[in-house]
Amino acid sequence: MSRILRVAAAQSGPIQKADSRPAVVARMIGLLDEAAARKCDLVVFTELALTTFFPRWLMTEQAEIDAFFEREMPNAATRPLFERAAAHGIAMSFGYAELTADGRRFNTAILTGRDGRIVGKYRKVHLPGHSEFDPARSFQHLEKRYFEPGDLGFPVWRALGGILGMCICNDRRWPETWRVLGLQGAELVVLGFNTPAVNSQKAEEGPEQRMFQHRLSLQAGAYQNSTWVVATAKCGVEDGHPLMGGTMIVNPDGEIVAEAKTLEDELVVADCDLDLTRFGKQTVFDFARHRRPEHYSRITSQTGVILPPEE
Amino acid sequence: MSRILRVAAAQSGPIQKADSRPAVVARMIGLLDEAAARKCDLVVFTELALTTFFPRWLMTEQAEIDAFFEREMPNAATRPLFERAAAHGIAMSFGYAELTADGRRFNTAILTGRDGRIVGKYRKVHLPGHSEFDPARSFQHLEKRYFEPGDLGFPVWRALGGILGMCICNDRRWPETWRVLGLQGAELVVLGFNTPAVNSQKAEEGPEQRMFQHRLSLQAGAYQNSTWVVATAKCGVEDGHPLMGGTMIVNPDGEIVAEAKTLEDELVVADCDLDLTRFGKQTVFDFARHRRPEHYSRITSQTGVILPPEE
Repeated sequence: MSRILRVAAAQSGPIQKADSRPAVVARMIGLLDEAAARKCDLVVFTELALTTFFPRWLMTEQAEIDAFFEREMPNAATRPLFERAAAHGIAMSFGYAELTADGRRFNTAILTGRDGRIVGKYRKVHLPGHSEFDPARSFQHLEKRYFEPGDLGFPVWRALGGILGMCICNDRRWPETWRVLGLQGAELVVLGFNTPAVNSQKAEEGPEQRMFQHRLSLQAGAYQNSTWVVATAKCGVEDGHPLMGGTMIVNPDGEIVAEAKTLEDELVVADCDLDLTRFGKQTVFDFARHRRPEHYSRITSQTGVILPPEE
Repeated sequence: MSRILRVAAAQSGPIQKADSRPAVVARMIGLLDEAAARKCDLVVFTELALTTFFPRWLMTEQAEIDAFFEREMPNAATRPLFERAAAHGIAMSFGYAELTADGRRFNTAILTGRDGRIVGKYRKVHLPGHSEFDPARSFQHLEKRYFEPGDLGFPVWRALGGILGMCICNDRRWPETWRVLGLQGAELVVLGFNTPAVNSQKAEEGPEQRMFQHRLSLQAGAYQNSTWVVATAKCGVEDGHPLMGGTMIVNPDGEIVAEAKTLEDELVVADCDLDLTRFGKQTVFDFARHRRPEHYSRITSQTGVILPPEE
C-alpha cells in the first residue's frame, strides 16, 4: 500500500489584535478549501493559529489575558473549521492557547482525523522567554508567564497510515524533542511557530541568521531521526512586530522539499512518502544497533550545565 | 583576559596502506610547523591519523590487524610529533587505533597541552558500520569488528583557558554526543573523521548529499549547545576508496567560519573567541531554565525504537 501523504503547511499571515476569531477561522477555511482542491490529506496550521502572538505583551488584567484562550475545542468559533475539514475528509493540526476546566494554561496543538474528530493533543514542553517584565528587551516574550510547560510529553499517534508526532515552535530547537519522537518511530512531525524576525536581546541578530537557525533545527531533527517534518509559520507584521516566515517541508534526509515564498497566508504542499523514512532508520540511524544510552545519563539526570571541577 | 584561541584543523590527504608511520608523522610535523608559523594555539588532526582507514577491509590475520594499532602513546613513531608540538608550545589532538595492555581495542583520540603531555583521552562511542563481512555493500565498514565502543563517556577538560571536548567521526551525527558535552559547558569540541564519499548501501547517495549531512550535524551540534566546533577530515582517494573532505570550523551560532579548499594536507585556521559561546548559553540554550528532562526519559531508558501499540 502506498504511504504517500499529500501534506499542506498552511502558513498564516499576521493576525492583528483586533482580528476576530470568526475572521481568522474564515481565513483558515479558505486554506482548507484550497488544500482540498489540491487533494491534500493533511493540513498543518500554525502555533496559536487563532490569535495574534499575545506573549509579546505584559498584560495584567485577567480578562484581557483570558480573551486569548480557548476553554473547549472545538468551540463556537472553530466548529465551522472542524466541519469543513470533515466535509473535505482532510486531517488537520493547529495550535491554540488552552485554558482547562481546572484553570491550567497550555500552549497546545491538536491533530484531527479525516472525520474531524480530535485524535491527538500536544502541549508545548519548551516554553521560551521569561515570566516577568524585562525592561532590557526590545520587546517581551512572556510565554513562561502565560503558560505552564506541557504535561503530556511527546506522544506519537498512528494516523493516516503512519506514525505522526507534534511539537511546537521552540521545541524544534531542542534535539531532545526530535529524539523522543524518533524513539517512538515518528515518520512525520508537524509543528507551528511564531518566531520574531529579530532577537529581543541582540539587535544585530536579524532575520537571515534566525532563518538559518530555524532551518538548521528542522533539518537536523529530520535527518537525525529520519522523519518528515512539516513546519508552519505565522509571519508578517503583527501589531507592529515582525514575525519571520520559513514555512517548509523537510524530507527524512534533512533536505527542504518545499518552502513558502511569501509572508502571507500561503499553502506549501509536498507529497511525503512515509516509506522514505525507512532507509535512514535501518542504517545510520538504526538506534538499536548504534545508540549507547549508558553514556547519555546526563541528558536525563541533570537539567542545567554542571561545569568540570576547577583545577 | 582574552579567550581567543587560534585553532588549526589540520586536514589530512589520503594515507595509503603502504605509507609508513614515519612518513605520516613527517607530514603531520609539516602541518605543525605551518601552524606554528601562523601562531596557532591548537592543532586538530584527524581520526585514525596515523594510518589508512583500515575498517574498509575484512582482515582475518591478527598480525595484519595489529599492524594498524598503537600499543602506547607516544611511541617511537609518534614521539617526534609530540616533541615538535612541545617545542612550538602548541596543543594538539589526533586519533589512532588503540590496543591496550589487556588487549582491548578502541578508536581513540588524545588531547595534549602546550607542553606535549597528554591531558585528555576519548574513545569513540558511536561506532558505525557492522562486524561481519557484508556482501551487499559496495565496500566494508567494519568498525564494529575492530573496535569496541568507547568506555570513557564524553568527558571535557579545562585546557587553554576554556572547556574542551572531543568526539570522533560518526559521533557527530548523534545529538546525544553534543548534548552530553554541552551539559558540561563545552566551549570548543574537536573531532576528526574518515567519511567515505559514497554510501556503501545506497549508490545514489554521493558526496554532495553526504557533505550536506556532515555540515548539518556539525552546525546543529554547535548551535544547539553554543560551542565552537573544529572538524578535521582525512580525505582524498585512499587505496582506491574516495573519502570526502569537509574540514571546517563552526562558530557557536552554527555558522561555518573556515573550510578546506582541497582534498589534500591543508591547514584550516580560525580565531575562536570562547566568550562568543556565552550569549547562546545564557539565552535560548540556557539549559537550566529551559530543559525539561522529565519528558526525555526515553533517551536514556531505551536504546532502540519502541513503536506505539497497533490500534
